[in-house]
Amino acid sequence: MDGNESAQVGVVMGSDSDLAIMRQTLEALLEFGIPYEAQVCSAHRSPDRAGLYASSAAERGLKVIICGAGMAAHLAGVMAASTSLPVIAVPLAASSLAGIDSLLSSVQMPPGVPVATVAINGARNAAILAVQILALSDPELAEKLVAFKAKMADGIDEKNRNMAAILKGRPKGR
Amino acid sequence: MDGNESAQVGVVMGSDSDLAIMRQTLEALLEFGIPYEAQVCSAHRSPDRAGLYASSAAERGLKVIICGAGMAAHLAGVMAASTSLPVIAVPLAASSLAGIDSLLSSVQMPPGVPVATVAINGARNAAILAVQILALSDPELAEKLVAFKAKMADGIDEKNRNMAAILKGRPKGR
Amino acid sequence: MDGNESAQVGVVMGSDSDLAIMRQTLEALLEFGIPYEAQVCSAHRSPDRAGLYASSAAERGLKVIICGAGMAAHLAGVMAASTSLPVIAVPLAASSLAGIDSLLSSVQMPPGVPVATVAINGARNAAILAVQILALSDPELAEKLVAFKAKMADGIDEKNRNMAAILKGRPKGR
Amino acid sequence: MDGNESAQVGVVMGSDSDLAIMRQTLEALLEFGIPYEAQVCSAHRSPDRAGLYASSAAERGLKVIICGAGMAAHLAGVMAASTSLPVIAVPLAASSLAGIDSLLSSVQMPPGVPVATVAINGARNAAILAVQILALSDPELAEKLVAFKAKMADGIDEKNRNMAAILKGRPKGR
Amino acid sequence: MDGNESAQVGVVMGSDSDLAIMRQTLEALLEFGIPYEAQVCSAHRSPDRAGLYASSAAERGLKVIICGAGMAAHLAGVMAASTSLPVIAVPLAASSLAGIDSLLSSVQMPPGVPVATVAINGARNAAILAVQILALSDPELAEKLVAFKAKMADGIDEKNRNMAAILKGRPKGR
Amino acid sequence: MDGNESAQVGVVMGSDSDLAIMRQTLEALLEFGIPYEAQVCSAHRSPDRAGLYASSAAERGLKVIICGAGMAAHLAGVMAASTSLPVIAVPLAASSLAGIDSLLSSVQMPPGVPVATVAINGARNAAILAVQILALSDPELAEKLVAFKAKMADGIDEKNRNMAAILKGRPKGR
Amino acid sequence: MDGNESAQVGVVMGSDSDLAIMRQTLEALLEFGIPYEAQVCSAHRSPDRAGLYASSAAERGLKVIICGAGMAAHLAGVMAASTSLPVIAVPLAASSLAGIDSLLSSVQMPPGVPVATVAINGARNAAILAVQILALSDPELAEKLVAFKAKMADGIDEKNRNMAAILKGRPKGR
Amino acid sequence: MDGNESAQVGVVMGSDSDLAIMRQTLEALLEFGIPYEAQVCSAHRSPDRAGLYASSAAERGLKVIICGAGMAAHLAGVMAASTSLPVIAVPLAASSLAGIDSLLSSVQMPPGVPVATVAINGARNAAILAVQILALSDPELAEKLVAFKAKMADGIDEKNRNMAAILKGRPKGR
Repeated sequence: MDGNESAQVGVVMGSDSDLAIMRQTLEALLEFGIPYEAQVCSAHRSPDRAGLYASSAAERGLKVIICGAGMAAHLAGVMAASTSLPVIAVPLAASSLAGIDSLLSSVQMPPGVPVATVAINGARNAAILAVQILALSDPELAEKLVAFKAKMADGIDEKNRNMAAILKGRPKGR
Repeated sequence: MDGNESAQVGVVMGSDSDLAIMRQTLEALLEFGIPYEAQVCSAHRSPDRAGLYASSAAERGLKVIICGAGMAAHLAGVMAASTSLPVIAVPLAASSLAGIDSLLSSVQMPPGVPVATVAINGARNAAILAVQILALSDPELAEKLVAFKAKMADGIDEKNRNMAAILKGRPKGR
Repeated sequence: MDGNESAQVGVVMGSDSDLAIMRQTLEALLEFGIPYEAQVCSAHRSPDRAGLYASSAAERGLKVIICGAGMAAHLAGVMAASTSLPVIAVPLAASSLAGIDSLLSSVQMPPGVPVATVAINGARNAAILAVQILALSDPELAEKLVAFKAKMADGIDEKNRNMAAILKGRPKGR
Repeated sequence: MDGNESAQVGVVMGSDSDLAIMRQTLEALLEFGIPYEAQVCSAHRSPDRAGLYASSAAERGLKVIICGAGMAAHLAGVMAASTSLPVIAVPLAASSLAGIDSLLSSVQMPPGVPVATVAINGARNAAILAVQILALSDPELAEKLVAFKAKMADGIDEKNRNMAAILKGRPKGR
Repeated sequence: MDGNESAQVGVVMGSDSDLAIMRQTLEALLEFGIPYEAQVCSAHRSPDRAGLYASSAAERGLKVIICGAGMAAHLAGVMAASTSLPVIAVPLAASSLAGIDSLLSSVQMPPGVPVATVAINGARNAAILAVQILALSDPELAEKLVAFKAKMADGIDEKNRNMAAILKGRPKGR
Repeated sequence: MDGNESAQVGVVMGSDSDLAIMRQTLEALLEFGIPYEAQVCSAHRSPDRAGLYASSAAERGLKVIICGAGMAAHLAGVMAASTSLPVIAVPLAASSLAGIDSLLSSVQMPPGVPVATVAINGARNAAILAVQILALSDPELAEKLVAFKAKMADGIDEKNRNMAAILKGRPKGR
Repeated sequence: MDGNESAQVGVVMGSDSDLAIMRQTLEALLEFGIPYEAQVCSAHRSPDRAGLYASSAAERGLKVIICGAGMAAHLAGVMAASTSLPVIAVPLAASSLAGIDSLLSSVQMPPGVPVATVAINGARNAAILAVQILALSDPELAEKLVAFKAKMADGIDEKNRNMAAILKGRPKGR
Repeated sequence: MDGNESAQVGVVMGSDSDLAIMRQTLEALLEFGIPYEAQVCSAHRSPDRAGLYASSAAERGLKVIICGAGMAAHLAGVMAASTSLPVIAVPLAASSLAGIDSLLSSVQMPPGVPVATVAINGARNAAILAVQILALSDPELAEKLVAFKAKMADGIDEKNRNMAAILKGRPKGR
């Protein structure tokens, strides 16, 4: 386990190969300075570990669990069954079906056990959603989010300059 | 629980309302004289019970587990994670998506943990598949299956008579 | 507006007719004693109101925004663009496409602006997810969630008794 | 911004990377001599700018707005909410779902706020549709369209010559 | 034919039964005072009439053609092939596939021949889009559109009052 | 069997209940005076009968085989495997998936064994396609088809009159 | 045009680039010695040519028309509208939607105007279907089809030898 | 044929090229020491062989049949029609539709004739499912499965070490 005593977010994925996408979650958590732990844990190959991870998460100090899984993606649902913490699912495009299988397996949870689902391969957004949740009781983090949003809006200006440079000198009609 | 000491097949469903479809499983098992037990058990609402059911199934004498579930149908996958018995999934059409969500959640299992999936709402076929599996070591049951197949073929004759009656007296071209 | 000075959750929907499904959100919030406000607000028909609602939400004391919308469901995304609060989307099945349009319109958000999406018509789960988020800084609420989960597991026993009653007296195989 | 004082068409896209497809819009507008302006503008990352762009479009002299966006493509809908000008959407294939997400997010608009949607990645057709709209009050442009259609039909002759050359000398049956 | 000498919009549908949905187009055109003509015309059953209708539309004074069709909906594409006027498609949900067939048949036009597609069964929006196009050269109509948008925004207030009435007296949390 | 010594078209369906849709095939064949035989025959329940039916079809004088089947619709493919006659498939909407399962099961045949597939539930068109094939060597039948097409075009006039009657007296704009 | 005075099959495609797939049709027709003509003809870019081609096909001696087209594939439907000859569609995978758009645009024809649709990119099968149709009045061709089927069955033996060679020397269990 | 006198599992595929995926089935059977036979056999190109294979399978000593097929995948259904042995389908992604065609063609079997379907390209799981079935009457095999499951769970530890190594030295938040 890539553990961390003071971790606030648990990032769980079905295989180490999922790290190719899920490292975007870790990077975004780092950007916001959120302590996390990362773990491989399969709903199907290590069910006891998955249940134990979720049922002990709150007392270990975790606030949010983020699960990345593909195909019949049960990991987030299985976690959500064993904890009252918010569970965020990142459906991974890991089969020929381009992630529609993992999206439906993650989002279509029955009444009583919600999973907060983000876009297929939306690993970065899972982290930002976790930050938004944590910021509700962390004013400093809330300020970082405001700055993040402002920077994102400013980024549009830069993209416009890039585009202008690409299009420069081209005619624009009569 | 609708238990049975000598049950060979465990029929598990996410809610008692699933019985509307899943009773076709029970009826087909009865046709073949297979002792079964029926149980409501949710991967999400009672995860411990689900894991325990599966992990103790073999020693309790079960040979096959049949799971009926809708939406993000994790029940069969969660069962399959905790037993080496064959697990059969009946994806139920329980949301606006007409069962495509439960089909993909059931069938797209990752390598190592198969779930034998039948048609959406295919509760009767789940039972017949279980019978086919049990018949491998039960010659009497195998004979019943041969008779069942013959009867099914004969049923085509009756359907043809029905259709002929419906169409009777109608012209059939110049 | 169905406002509330101390509201912690803002429940926004595109039309008063969406209340048919979205009242499940309101009822679940009531079960947990969460003060909320309910509002009709359309990303397309009243864009200024939608933007204003979101950008002023935090200072008005809201902690979470829940949006119910159908078809090209832009409401949650538009809200998320103008606030740093967590935004939860309930994709509504409001067209012939059974909610696949609103699901994809809600969940497939680009990097930087997450929307926490629950199941199609999953109005009840949106509320429970909001409760899970609020419970992170409200120990009393966290206890309610633990009790809720326990009661849900107990409900399985009742469902089993119901099923047993239905199946009573029926044979269970040879 | 890639502005133009006399621009008749505003071409807006979510990111400068969308220019890879959206430059086909710009090129087709040039072919017909239509003055345009090109702009990066995100419904989610710069919502105020997007609303302002749309609400001021008519008075700035724009006649048509073309929006290219992928995933949960809200840009065209958000623009259409704030202007009475015709808004054309080009759904971009920007996720694993091959554009079905952006198509449904663009086309399934609720009553009252239409978006004129063209094919996934149909950037060239968006421009031609804009030209068809502008030509209604510009006889010279209408003539160009007639010539364009005639040339397109003539192009079929050339394609037939190409194909004949490829197939030349091949037998064609007994 | 339901002709009109001064018609500005031609509303064409594959069958008189399509009027069930397409009358929303006619009603919205009436709301805005747009003279129209309505016509049944099939790309498959009366191809000559369809081609002739489109190729003579401009000289007959039409400005926009709106086509409603279901299943393999070729009507709009066939019209667009024979005119330079803007053609708007309303994909109708007329088969078991709920309109996904007519949507893809309408929107996925090849380069050179655009069809402006609105939502499945989006007959009302087709009319509003036509009005937006006509309003570009009709200041009075443009003012009507501004008023229409304002009224739509005001309608949100009424919906909020309706919802408040429904929810009145209900508790809203602790 | 609903046989006919001089039958030119064999109409085969998986169950007598399929007659609800497939009788449109029989009626259309009658309209054109084509002698046919109708038969219930299942690829799965009576595989030997299905193979025998197809392999003996040509020598029994059949020219075309039409198969109606739902779900995993193998009937047409199995027939096509055992005959060189043209085989036409009518995919029936017989499951919650609205016929998309039977469409793909029918049309996606591998190289070497084509099945001519018509629309989901397109039973009438299957007959007309068979007539078109038979008419290639039957000038009288070819004339009937020309008359049929003319009548279909004329039907548009009647539909226009119907629509005019419905719309009569309604205003048509300023 | 790649014409042929004695052509029995007209092979029409929307663009010369479609030849990449459609040459499989031409090659299969050659295998069976069927005289054909190949032509580029677009329902959208050259509608008059398309209508003329179809309406004159029978008198020019054609027996079957095969159409290959992608995206909103209207070519086969437009041809079928103007001829009583059997029309076969090959839906081409020409957009990001992998041919599901062209499949539905081709196969979902309304009652009265059938199109015989084969698999996505199933160009070879279109030719074999045409041969099956022509063989109904050409005994020599019928014999070729019987031989073709026999050879195809024999090909399975060769494939088995290939596989045996690949697997040779590998163990096959205890 | 890649036969084996004592074979317990018959592995059948539509073409030798399917071996690219289906060799995972053979390898997994070898891991568990299950004697098998491998065979190319097409429901469409060699229907007699397919029927004969299935109808003689039980008496030849086979216990389970595994079928790998793509597109309109009829092989498993055709086999299941002619045997009472359990038949497992591996839907192969062999067309532009990424295996959704073969999945639906395999799993949506009508009542009476089940096919146990695993994931698209899930060749390895088909073998494990067969082992689970055989283990019901083979205690030694059942033990191997328990060990297999334990090893799979242990593999998670190794994956965690791999991930830890990748992430080593990276910061984990404030």
